[in-house]
Amino acid sequence: MILTDSQKKEIKDQQSQKNETKRVTAPQLEKILYEAIPALDHGFVRVVDYMGDDTSIVQSARVSYGKGTKQVSTDAGLIKYLMRHWHSTPFEMCEIKYHVKLPIFIARQWIRHRTANVNEYSARYSILDKEFYLPSLENLAAQSTSNRQGRGDVLEGKQAEKVLELLKEDAERTYENYENMLNERYDGSTIDENKKGLARELARMNLTLNTYTQWYWKTDLLNLMNFLRLRADSHAQYEIRIYANIMLDTVKKWVPITYEAFMDYRVGGTEVSAKGKLIIQKLIKGENVDVNNSGLSKREWNELMVAFDLKDKMI
Amino acid sequence: MILTDSQKKEIKDQQSQKNETKRVTAPQLEKILYEAIPALDHGFVRVVDYMGDDTSIVQSARVSYGKGTKQVSTDAGLIKYLMRHWHSTPFEMCEIKYHVKLPIFIARQWIRHRTANVNEYSARYSILDKEFYLPSLENLAAQSTSNRQGRGDVLEGKQAEKVLELLKEDAERTYENYENMLNERYDGSTIDENKKGLARELARMNLTLNTYTQWYWKTDLLNLMNFLRLRADSHAQYEIRIYANIMLDTVKKWVPITYEAFMDYRVGGTEVSAKGKLIIQKLIKGENVDVNNSGLSKREWNELMVAFDLKDKMI
Amino acid sequence: MILTDSQKKEIKDQQSQKNETKRVTAPQLEKILYEAIPALDHGFVRVVDYMGDDTSIVQSARVSYGKGTKQVSTDAGLIKYLMRHWHSTPFEMCEIKYHVKLPIFIARQWIRHRTANVNEYSARYSILDKEFYLPSLENLAAQSTSNRQGRGDVLEGKQAEKVLELLKEDAERTYENYENMLNERYDGSTIDENKKGLARELARMNLTLNTYTQWYWKTDLLNLMNFLRLRADSHAQYEIRIYANIMLDTVKKWVPITYEAFMDYRVGGTEVSAKGKLIIQKLIKGENVDVNNSGLSKREWNELMVAFDLKDKMI
Amino acid sequence: MILTDSQKKEIKDQQSQKNETKRVTAPQLEKILYEAIPALDHGFVRVVDYMGDDTSIVQSARVSYGKGTKQVSTDAGLIKYLMRHWHSTPFEMCEIKYHVKLPIFIARQWIRHRTANVNEYSARYSILDKEFYLPSLENLAAQSTSNRQGRGDVLEGKQAEKVLELLKEDAERTYENYENMLNERYDGSTIDENKKGLARELARMNLTLNTYTQWYWKTDLLNLMNFLRLRADSHAQYEIRIYANIMLDTVKKWVPITYEAFMDYRVGGTEVSAKGKLIIQKLIKGENVDVNNSGLSKREWNELMVAFDLKDKMI
Repeated sequence: MILTDSQKKEIKDQQSQKNETKRVTAPQLEKILYEAIPALDHGFVRVVDYMGDDTSIVQSARVSYGKGTKQVSTDAGLIKYLMRHWHSTPFEMCEIKYHVKLPIFIARQWIRHRTANVNEYSARYSILDKEFYLPSLENLAAQSTSNRQGRGDVLEGKQAEKVLELLKEDAERTYENYENMLNERYDGSTIDENKKGLARELARMNLTLNTYTQWYWKTDLLNLMNFLRLRADSHAQYEIRIYANIMLDTVKKWVPITYEAFMDYRVGGTEVSAKGKLIIQKLIKGENVDVNNSGLSKREWNELMVAFDLKDKMI
Repeated sequence: MILTDSQKKEIKDQQSQKNETKRVTAPQLEKILYEAIPALDHGFVRVVDYMGDDTSIVQSARVSYGKGTKQVSTDAGLIKYLMRHWHSTPFEMCEIKYHVKLPIFIARQWIRHRTANVNEYSARYSILDKEFYLPSLENLAAQSTSNRQGRGDVLEGKQAEKVLELLKEDAERTYENYENMLNERYDGSTIDENKKGLARELARMNLTLNTYTQWYWKTDLLNLMNFLRLRADSHAQYEIRIYANIMLDTVKKWVPITYEAFMDYRVGGTEVSAKGKLIIQKLIKGENVDVNNSGLSKREWNELMVAFDLKDKMI
Repeated sequence: MILTDSQKKEIKDQQSQKNETKRVTAPQLEKILYEAIPALDHGFVRVVDYMGDDTSIVQSARVSYGKGTKQVSTDAGLIKYLMRHWHSTPFEMCEIKYHVKLPIFIARQWIRHRTANVNEYSARYSILDKEFYLPSLENLAAQSTSNRQGRGDVLEGKQAEKVLELLKEDAERTYENYENMLNERYDGSTIDENKKGLARELARMNLTLNTYTQWYWKTDLLNLMNFLRLRADSHAQYEIRIYANIMLDTVKKWVPITYEAFMDYRVGGTEVSAKGKLIIQKLIKGENVDVNNSGLSKREWNELMVAFDLKDKMI
Repeated sequence: MILTDSQKKEIKDQQSQKNETKRVTAPQLEKILYEAIPALDHGFVRVVDYMGDDTSIVQSARVSYGKGTKQVSTDAGLIKYLMRHWHSTPFEMCEIKYHVKLPIFIARQWIRHRTANVNEYSARYSILDKEFYLPSLENLAAQSTSNRQGRGDVLEGKQAEKVLELLKEDAERTYENYENMLNERYDGSTIDENKKGLARELARMNLTLNTYTQWYWKTDLLNLMNFLRLRADSHAQYEIRIYANIMLDTVKKWVPITYEAFMDYRVGGTEVSAKGKLIIQKLIKGENVDVNNSGLSKREWNELMVAFDLKDKMI
């Protein structure tokens, strides 16, 4: 990630602010506010604003559940209770805003999370930066044939180098032709004074999906956790997981108690179906149970074994 | 509005906070943060948190529209432009949280605005306060027969006094019976140690709709303006307008530039249909046009005349 | 539930329709379309429209996951897979619309589910029906002291009768005074020609929260399942569970395959935290584990034991 | 647009359905149900399901506004009234589902409308079709310097041909390299049995933004109108307008009364600010008013003049 001089100055100016407020603050998050945390080769994540902290969740839960919550004496106890029982509305009382730079094909996955506010850099009006994502060699992976979603064996040696070369060449060539169509360089300079340029809203279609874009993305803590639960998961695409992991760390700095509960109940937890419960019960009783008499499909059986780290039982 | 001692102390504690932050602040709004602004006879509105200010809108709009927005040189000019052209997403970048005490029948109108986060005091778990809304004499109005929505002629004299008396008596009696069913007073004291009480989730059904409830209500600036546009309007019910007007004033303190644009384009503005445009054009040209040759229904014609203060033309 | 003659006629007219369509239909649901299924003493649930069936879910999932889904050969297998892995968007492709009559205090719980479209009967413009909910004797329960949410021991004998009497008297008296303020009876007849009536928008505040209201409520299948998961649960208030159970049955008629998966993975399933997983693993291995060495709070431990029906282990 | 044989068969099968239903139907829409209406060079729009018609809007409005709506005698009158006064919830009672094939850069604009359900073809799991959008010669426009959004003068002659050539070449080359990286052709055949392929989730990043994708997109009538108001507007990008216009026509077939009201009040209508209203009033009175004494900015003045077709007054 290389920031321009004007970006560096903007960040420095923002960080040098010292305002007085009666609002609650999150001291650990304040420390990294506005900072551009690198992601992938040219991307970044910046926390640019936030509202509320762990006490905001507790405050609204206590109004909502009233005297009932007095039985749960500590804030941590209450937050864990809310998380465990899917009492989700108090978590909506905290809000955060990120500035993110990311490749377009990742932005397309990300935007599917609808409950957020977004302002994206518009290639209809402005020229996109000359930056595109190129995976590292170790991440160039061959898609396993058993699971079309993940990346099985890693592409190696010359074949991997060839792929990287193609990605780089194609991105550079299409970007150069993008400039030619616009009759304008990425820095705003005109190429040929005697020519007209194609409309930006049209020229952009020539760019490849690894071109970087950027946006402001604002959401509440509940929806952020829903996003992170899916996108920081091992089944998520590597490139979006990089962003999710950075954001997970900002959640830790922002609302540390909620973070702990989230890791325990959501990220580290699992769901068990009605049929799965019966099997667990039998296993605890020491009864004999295998995939054939379980009532589960093979796939489901394996997922249950993996969830409880019971892989030896699979044979 | 009478605050309990513990409520007064909580507000004082909140207001005495002096935290340092790198976030933008809204100095005029900070001045009234946490303050309980009275509404109706027992209600209040408190701003308890916020995020962003006018510059946050400008910041995200400039990222979004890029170089295109450089033509609009000032922040005020840009905000007016966004408002005029329904470029609404930048207004979603600001967030505000209110603590509101309000009668249940008003809460039922309010909650219909779905794009907000809400934590309401739960009568399932806690006893509701012994407070109910009673209109002032001048607001006890007879529903006009021409418009079933509004309140035409004012109920006067003995009839008005009688109505107030009924409202008061019924609210007090049903509340007393609510306590009797619970076998518990509003202050938590038990009535008869030898009796069981009815579940709170059931007893509450005996209360009247003017009983006060309270909630935390959080929304972004765009949805807040949508709410205020409808609820601060003269067609809105008087009781919700009281709340909307207080909130309109908090918007003025929070984002003064956006407030001006909102008043000009939304609150003070009007919409004209395709057919209505033709009539305005004819009127400007001095052509003869009346309801009969207008192509509009009588109702629509009158609405157009009222919108442009052309009432003399109605004959 | 007593339907008026005009309501009966409307339902009969709707049911006698025979339209030809190229859309998919759900034959079992068609059989009960428009039918008023009784709920509580005066309420009902009617399915008045729907869109899509189990095949609509499969269709959009196969477009979305493409060739990847070909491994899952049957529709039932695919729907189970989607449910298990929270691939939720295909379930949004089905939509249903209900007409519901329900007490106001239940409507207030229900409306908290925001992702739905609602048109409620407006007491601002029209007179509410003279109908209010009165619990049956066996459902008048004393709130248990251990759990303020539920209803522990049942109120019995004279005390229960007394509660019912109070509820009935208060509802009838406040309704009668509502009519008096309006100067209009529930059937629309004027009480005293020489008097003005209070505006409906004001008079309604005198009604108690067990008065019935009605609405059209439309939502997609995913959000309906989220609603049912919470509201058909044993922790939900009895009165809303009655409605949820009726709706659960309409889901069975509408999308039978999805219904089975929903019952297995959501309704009958459970969640286990990271810490809980370790305990289950130890139990399966036959290791000694109790609440004290579990790392769980007592409450959490008990919830885990209950979830897997391991109550004997609690001592 | 060229449909494959299997697509043609699927459409034919769907269209040959004759199901009986008690639901309301929209006969004009039934006629074109499932039909692939061509859009741009390779795209299409298909209505694949719907729920409700004009009477559904009227039905829920009459429940909602009760006796108040009886004054508006006809369905058309009521729908016009609802549209004029932004009584928007009854329009949410109708739902429609489209199957759309469209270039990725247009899909990125489209998806910003969040209140819809979407299932997009996933290039993470499946190979994208070998189809990319190429504008027609007459639509290759030079972006005007006065308005960076639109397309001013048309690129002509050799320069236009050169642009088309570049777009075509780049799309074809990046697609070919996409296949090479995957070690798989668009038809699923393997290129080199001795090589591994790159994961689909990675290879897709090499494609250009004019590559076609497809999705199922489902929304309610209110949100559809919000979409169409913005995207069928002359300021919208040509490529998305093509889709919006096709969909506008499906609205006409589906809910003809609502369509008329929408065209009159939204599409053909205009908004006038508080300041703008004063100017219109002066113009009607024949008073002298120009940009300098208007209180409007030059831009705002021009927009007002254009809205009422008063361009002569601009000098």
